[in-house]
Amino acid sequence: MLVDQRTRDDAGVFRLDAKTALVQTVDFFTPVVDDPLAYGAIAAANAVSDVYAMGGRPLTALSIAAFPEVDFPLEWAQQIVRGGAEALARAGCALLGGHSVRDPELKFGYAVTGLVDPERMLTNAGGRAGQVLVLTKPLGTGVIATALKAGKAPEAMVEAATASMLRLNREACEAALAHGVTAATDVTGFGLAGHAAAIARESRLTLEFDWAALPLLPGAQDLAERFQASGLEANRREFEPQVEYGGRTENARKALAYDPQTSGGLLLLVPEPEVDGLVAMLEGARIVGRTRNQGPRPIVFRG
Amino acid sequence: MLVDQRTRDDAGVFRLDAKTALVQTVDFFTPVVDDPLAYGAIAAANAVSDVYAMGGRPLTALSIAAFPEVDFPLEWAQQIVRGGAEALARAGCALLGGHSVRDPELKFGYAVTGLVDPERMLTNAGGRAGQVLVLTKPLGTGVIATALKAGKAPEAMVEAATASMLRLNREACEAALAHGVTAATDVTGFGLAGHAAAIARESRLTLEFDWAALPLLPGAQDLAERFQASGLEANRREFEPQVEYGGRTENARKALAYDPQTSGGLLLLVPEPEVDGLVAMLEGARIVGRTRNQGPRPIVFRG
Repeated sequence: MLVDQRTRDDAGVFRLDAKTALVQTVDFFTPVVDDPLAYGAIAAANAVSDVYAMGGRPLTALSIAAFPEVDFPLEWAQQIVRGGAEALARAGCALLGGHSVRDPELKFGYAVTGLVDPERMLTNAGGRAGQVLVLTKPLGTGVIATALKAGKAPEAMVEAATASMLRLNREACEAALAHGVTAATDVTGFGLAGHAAAIARESRLTLEFDWAALPLLPGAQDLAERFQASGLEANRREFEPQVEYGGRTENARKALAYDPQTSGGLLLLVPEPEVDGLVAMLEGARIVGRTRNQGPRPIVFRG
Repeated sequence: MLVDQRTRDDAGVFRLDAKTALVQTVDFFTPVVDDPLAYGAIAAANAVSDVYAMGGRPLTALSIAAFPEVDFPLEWAQQIVRGGAEALARAGCALLGGHSVRDPELKFGYAVTGLVDPERMLTNAGGRAGQVLVLTKPLGTGVIATALKAGKAPEAMVEAATASMLRLNREACEAALAHGVTAATDVTGFGLAGHAAAIARESRLTLEFDWAALPLLPGAQDLAERFQASGLEANRREFEPQVEYGGRTENARKALAYDPQTSGGLLLLVPEPEVDGLVAMLEGARIVGRTRNQGPRPIVFRG
């Protein structure tokens, strides 16, 4: 075993031989959007993302389904499964089977296995001082999903968030491998601050972000004061003690640093000479900060 | 992809190279026993069993946990996880990670990945006429778990069922590979008749069982008239049309042919000259019938 849960990496890694290791991850969740086809596809994009975050290539998936018995048309189940299958196909990942149970609370997701070259693996521990931080998708999916559940998310904002969650991190992974990235994570349940803190700890660095540079989904900042998922508050309680606020910013933007993301982007630690080439190659990627030698706090946000 | 869900094999198989394929399976379920340590261990033994049923070696596991928020002591969660870890260790299987959610209904299980040599793989399709049927564990775990939920299962019967479910199918798999077995399945949710029907269909055979030879858990036959899980009735509706009753037997024994098993034994198709050696090597293994050319019904039970 090369990587397990203790490093809070995105996936477990098991070496098969000198050139090949398995990367494995499992995730499932209640709906984040109303459209069953999109929900299934987002669940798949989210599950394969952990493999991309390690620099791997998704290979196989097993579905995990908890479908209600009442008030749940068979057609919805079929669409969830079909949406997932389409996203897996985009990832070149074969669906090998699955398990489904009856459950009053709808949940869906996948266990995914990928392959990675152990020599080129992107872990939380590979970062160095003086690298540039790049984030490949905007923040705010948790806030928008929470507003949607309350019936308060404008349609255009839901559409933008859905499009972002449907996007695979495949190109981001390929760009990272092509441009000498040495550490990466995908930004998911622990929010930007939580996943950044894991990299800071494992790489013994401080990660310094620039408030103004953080990309946000359209509308996310407006909704963030009123629609914070319980996970956001939990992340803030856990990770804020590790954060130094070096600049001023709006409270809503501050909250989004802790917003749990579904199918979020990759946070990449990029060697300085490579960063312009990487950002040019990758639509939506933004330079959001730098790494430096370990300071008093592992995470700094500057104005 | 070598095997997928269409053949109703126990696990999906994905070829990595000429000598190596991944075997993958996922299963999780509500408690079948009251002891949390045993529940976790049974979930693990049950999950790795699908890999053994394909002639594979379990390699890695991801846990899948749905734990209630109320009336569920943290200590129970810890014991479930620990019981599972101990059983995985017996199987030589590394726990790489997992996902847990809050859920009013307790559920626990694993996604398991194993390795198999594609040339020596045991599938549902490999059976031949004139082979001997061997079952490696007694039937009745579904009936006994149902009686336990109703508070009507004598302690000694629960203990015997628990011991059987805790047992890994590792030795059964090793014996099968050592004795030229060409097809195998583990007997789980579809019951003996259901899993036998999948082998009959894929191998184009009739499987002929001897009522009197079927091993039963102590007390299972007494409990079977009153404590049939809903899955038993569903299996009977689905598979009884494929069954010919060629002999007389008690109704309770008949019901046990459809009883959904948790962590059940392997049903092995063994070349005649090898069967005595195999049964001698494997405690609890019983000769339960024979295969023959495809007749009018895929499954026959004889008195």
